[in-house]
Amino acid sequence: MMQTVTTIAEVRNWSAAARRTGQTVGLVPTMGALHEGHRSLIRRARQACQAVAVSLFVNPTQFGPNEDFDAYPRDLTADQGACAAEGVDLIFAPSAAEMYPTPPTTTVHVAGLTERLCGAHRPGHFDGVTTVVAKLLNIVEPDAAYFGQKDAQQAIVVRRMVADLDFRCRIVICPTVYDPDGLATSSRNAYLTAEQRRRALGLGEALRRAESRVREGRRDAREIAEAIRRHLAAKGIQSIDYIEVVDAATLSPVERIDGPTLIALAVRIGRTRLIDNTIVLDDGAGLRETSSR
Amino acid sequence: MMQTVTTIAEVRNWSAAARRTGQTVGLVPTMGALHEGHRSLIRRARQACQAVAVSLFVNPTQFGPNEDFDAYPRDLTADQGACAAEGVDLIFAPSAAEMYPTPPTTTVHVAGLTERLCGAHRPGHFDGVTTVVAKLLNIVEPDAAYFGQKDAQQAIVVRRMVADLDFRCRIVICPTVYDPDGLATSSRNAYLTAEQRRRALGLGEALRRAESRVREGRRDAREIAEAIRRHLAAKGIQSIDYIEVVDAATLSPVERIDGPTLIALAVRIGRTRLIDNTIVLDDGAGLRETSSR
Repeated sequence: MMQTVTTIAEVRNWSAAARRTGQTVGLVPTMGALHEGHRSLIRRARQACQAVAVSLFVNPTQFGPNEDFDAYPRDLTADQGACAAEGVDLIFAPSAAEMYPTPPTTTVHVAGLTERLCGAHRPGHFDGVTTVVAKLLNIVEPDAAYFGQKDAQQAIVVRRMVADLDFRCRIVICPTVYDPDGLATSSRNAYLTAEQRRRALGLGEALRRAESRVREGRRDAREIAEAIRRHLAAKGIQSIDYIEVVDAATLSPVERIDGPTLIALAVRIGRTRLIDNTIVLDDGAGLRETSSR
Repeated sequence: MMQTVTTIAEVRNWSAAARRTGQTVGLVPTMGALHEGHRSLIRRARQACQAVAVSLFVNPTQFGPNEDFDAYPRDLTADQGACAAEGVDLIFAPSAAEMYPTPPTTTVHVAGLTERLCGAHRPGHFDGVTTVVAKLLNIVEPDAAYFGQKDAQQAIVVRRMVADLDFRCRIVICPTVYDPDGLATSSRNAYLTAEQRRRALGLGEALRRAESRVREGRRDAREIAEAIRRHLAAKGIQSIDYIEVVDAATLSPVERIDGPTLIALAVRIGRTRLIDNTIVLDDGAGLRETSSR
């Protein structure tokens, strides 16, 4: 029977009871507004773990002052329905006051990996992410936590934090899920008009073309990035935060693509910021096999 | 039978086995060179917990470039003797390579509490402390960890980190232990010549006199600090890092002493840095009852 709880104490009781009976615990940390991408993470956790928790928390500390914290979609009832359908055992839906009873003074910072890509465009964002993930790992004490490759930099940064701070938890990174029309699933897709959504399909198209180019043997990073830029421009996407071609483990820019490489982009369509990425030359393993540990 | 292990994996196995059999786990994190102060922490852990681990690790990241990392006393055999005598179950004595297999990129930072007192004189010190304590808590997964009031700021900062990041562990702060001559026990006392040690007794004397003044009703923080400075000068201690009179919960300076107040000092005698402190107006509870949580 699925429970929804709002306090840290209730989660600790649930988790302790699960461990006491020898169950493995899986955690899917989310900001709610669950879509097929989240559901794929939950299914992965459900396959591997005997007790599955999903956290629903729109974490204020990872939003910048001009970002969409207030507008971010929230729908607990729909999220409960999705979790029940996927066989989740526990939903943890805390208030901000439960998570931050006093103004937060402790920050977990990962240097290096956070400085480029989204980190360069969202100051403080990854400190907010790593700090809240550290809290959630301490609250739930899971054996494994599940993240999507869609937020590739987030997943890599969290994996680095978990390794550096010796959290016992395993970080599992799952493939991006695409809607039938080719748009990567995202809670922020709800902001798009039909016309904006058609333009947004340019992201996936540009990445699929980049994959083809690499398969054909083109290895010049700048040429690949430029082709992506042209494709996005042809789709009417001019506002580009970044198009980056980086080492998939270190997130350092590469000139030539000759090992597992992350091709990542962030654009703005209207007021909506969208991201997507692909990993090339990785034998199809994505981030699963490019561990930085 | 006491075990000494050097790898994280061995600690995890030990800790998991203890938890599996329903034992509570206590951790005493130390840099080795164990003295009576450490032994009092171990005894406290031994009373409260069924399985007791002591970590011995001279953590390089909490030493500044001009500090005494290389000179810091190390004596595993003596420490093993002390731990065996106190009934310790597990010694964790890792190498730096075991704790930091890659150059550390993740830092746990506590803002506010770390900026004054020792934090002002040892840049980066508390980041090193909180980061290594976070690692040790994740490696050992103790129910309680034991710190001495002698390092009052450290204890307060660690307690704040544990609260902010929701570590399940309880932080227990134990009274400072004094040698029979009145010097607070410290691994760094080994650096002192007999003459320097006589001068060092001025620290405890000055603090005991400050306590008397407060008991007599004197509440002006500046007057108390000035009296300490005069006493130290009379003992030939001129090199003073700080003499601070601060709120025992927030570590903010106070003008009048009218609640639990930390009177803390740091001085240099020759090349040795010594600290000591007392809490006044706390009904004798010390840091135990001045939780910032």
